[in-house]
Amino acid sequence: MSEPPSERSEELLLDPFGTTIIKDYEKLYKEFGIEPLKPLLPRIKNPFMAMRRGVIFGHRDFEKIVECMEKNEKFAVLSGIKPTGEFHLGTLMTAREIIYFQQQGADTFYCIADIEAYEDNRIPFEKSEKYAVGNIADVLALGLDPKKAYIYRQSKENHVKDLAIIFGRAVTLATMKAIYGERHMGLYLSALIQVGDILLPQLRDFGGPKPTIVPVGVDQDPHLRLSRDIAQKFRRKYGFESPSATYHKIIKGLDGSPKMSKRSPMSYFTLDEKPETIANKISNAFTGGRPTIKEQREKGGIPEICPVYEIDVFHFVEDDKEVAKTYHDCKAGKLLCGEHKKRTIEYVLKFVKGHRKKRRKYIDKAREILNVE
Amino acid sequence: MSEPPSERSEELLLDPFGTTIIKDYEKLYKEFGIEPLKPLLPRIKNPFMAMRRGVIFGHRDFEKIVECMEKNEKFAVLSGIKPTGEFHLGTLMTAREIIYFQQQGADTFYCIADIEAYEDNRIPFEKSEKYAVGNIADVLALGLDPKKAYIYRQSKENHVKDLAIIFGRAVTLATMKAIYGERHMGLYLSALIQVGDILLPQLRDFGGPKPTIVPVGVDQDPHLRLSRDIAQKFRRKYGFESPSATYHKIIKGLDGSPKMSKRSPMSYFTLDEKPETIANKISNAFTGGRPTIKEQREKGGIPEICPVYEIDVFHFVEDDKEVAKTYHDCKAGKLLCGEHKKRTIEYVLKFVKGHRKKRRKYIDKAREILNVE
Repeated sequence: MSEPPSERSEELLLDPFGTTIIKDYEKLYKEFGIEPLKPLLPRIKNPFMAMRRGVIFGHRDFEKIVECMEKNEKFAVLSGIKPTGEFHLGTLMTAREIIYFQQQGADTFYCIADIEAYEDNRIPFEKSEKYAVGNIADVLALGLDPKKAYIYRQSKENHVKDLAIIFGRAVTLATMKAIYGERHMGLYLSALIQVGDILLPQLRDFGGPKPTIVPVGVDQDPHLRLSRDIAQKFRRKYGFESPSATYHKIIKGLDGSPKMSKRSPMSYFTLDEKPETIANKISNAFTGGRPTIKEQREKGGIPEICPVYEIDVFHFVEDDKEVAKTYHDCKAGKLLCGEHKKRTIEYVLKFVKGHRKKRRKYIDKAREILNVE
Repeated sequence: MSEPPSERSEELLLDPFGTTIIKDYEKLYKEFGIEPLKPLLPRIKNPFMAMRRGVIFGHRDFEKIVECMEKNEKFAVLSGIKPTGEFHLGTLMTAREIIYFQQQGADTFYCIADIEAYEDNRIPFEKSEKYAVGNIADVLALGLDPKKAYIYRQSKENHVKDLAIIFGRAVTLATMKAIYGERHMGLYLSALIQVGDILLPQLRDFGGPKPTIVPVGVDQDPHLRLSRDIAQKFRRKYGFESPSATYHKIIKGLDGSPKMSKRSPMSYFTLDEKPETIANKISNAFTGGRPTIKEQREKGGIPEICPVYEIDVFHFVEDDKEVAKTYHDCKAGKLLCGEHKKRTIEYVLKFVKGHRKKRRKYIDKAREILNVE
């Protein structure tokens, strides 16, 4: 964010969906060995919106999954949610990715990471259970087919806990500290549990081994690296394939901060908030606009740093052409921030209202899936 | 062992059962806060042989258990075995302690620490299962009443695993390192699992909370300190009482080494070895004897450093008076090592043969308890 926008905007004119990716994410390719997604895009018959737009920008071993999709071979998708509250735009992205892969034929695993919620966020299991019911209703309302999915809580899935115990022997303290820093035992334990989640689809009891795609935010890469390392170490015993991953960008905070965060209520909204509150947050969002209308008409806005533009791209404008038009109109000084916000608010509220209507119908089903009274 | 025996032997003449305890274990009282058992002995109606003889020399919060025994109040006993092989004199001690407390009215828990065997000794679960069947047959043959005991494997007891997950949050890495040194994740995880074992009897599902005595070798004190710390931290949630412990001395190696060890086959025997082999190992044992018979007749032997005397005291001579006579006869130069060994071999083989006969009858019962084909 600290670079002069002019330099960046020129480069980005070439790609309305590139936005902040090019400079900020480049080092992930170099330093961490994440591969760019773009070269694989032409081979994907029906790419997900976030893939087309560079929101999903990188991967590890995704080619294996592309091959499965091309040849109609068996593969699995696993991702999940930490049940610490209502659905927000981060969990929405992951949920949509899972649903996308389910629709492409993947055996689907959706994990409620309640052990992580406990270890990392101090949320007792009784409380995370309540969130989990809502979270599952959300993902069902978004289109996940529960008949073809295994939806589970870490705390109730003994295979996952037993895998964590088995993997523990192969993980040194130095590895844990290198990946997660100096944390308490519970956090490390929950990291092992997540490795258990990621490799669960590959157990024989679950029809494995098989290629598995784990679509996540790029901040989850440490879990993936650890999982891939452990998959190798236990390959002989279980026949594990290295799990594949796609990485989406982390959506900016509405207040211009680099990440939506519960600590700043104005930086994000949940799908459960009052429509007026959501509208109000977007109205008050930081933008890439200029200090005066005159200046904006002359120089154009900077969509690359604009969270309102970003939520269009990530979630709320389905037509790629419309997004491109917004981008160019903004840069040309034709679209002012007020107008843009008004339009985005309309899209968001339309989605939220429709979603809630569906969601209500799935609450009982969610309870049934979790076996909760 | 490096002190001049003469100085020590004088001091110990006062107490034939004191043996090496006084100097070697003194620092445990001072530095680690372990309390001496002796002051509590008069309050114990029917003290176990190893208590009377100072083999069980120290404790934490054992007074609470003594009170339960005095007032006929509910308490539990928990200890266990790491299924890494056949019963030896160390596991025999713990088993007898458990049986003693069961006979004093304790709710009895016997844990097969197969997760620890896996994490610490790399023994796969399929293999430790076989050892576990034998180990349980042993403890049943020794007199444990299975109808009044909960015998379980860590790997199959979800309460224990779930407790480890819950406790993880309250344990810093610094604590783990201070107690166990720099180890791999699995070892730390198995330490949390052991805390789960120790507090299991206090769960409501198991009739808790209640005072619990954990009779162990003094080398297990780190687990106890961690468990007591965690019991405090989760007192509000579970109502835990700090678990109590008694500590027995670690039996010396037959070869004179400070500890029986699998790495030195001549240092120990299992209850499963051929009688000739056992006899041979005792025949070849290190003793407290003098270089020549003449010298021994003049100066007397040194029972305090003698493993043959020690196995009498720990296990194989039931009559306190007989042990005291052996001690004094040895010190007076009346009992020579050859004669003593011969007598001890007779006791040991008599016990071993009788035990095996009983043990055979319990193999099926052990399989049934473990639910193993």
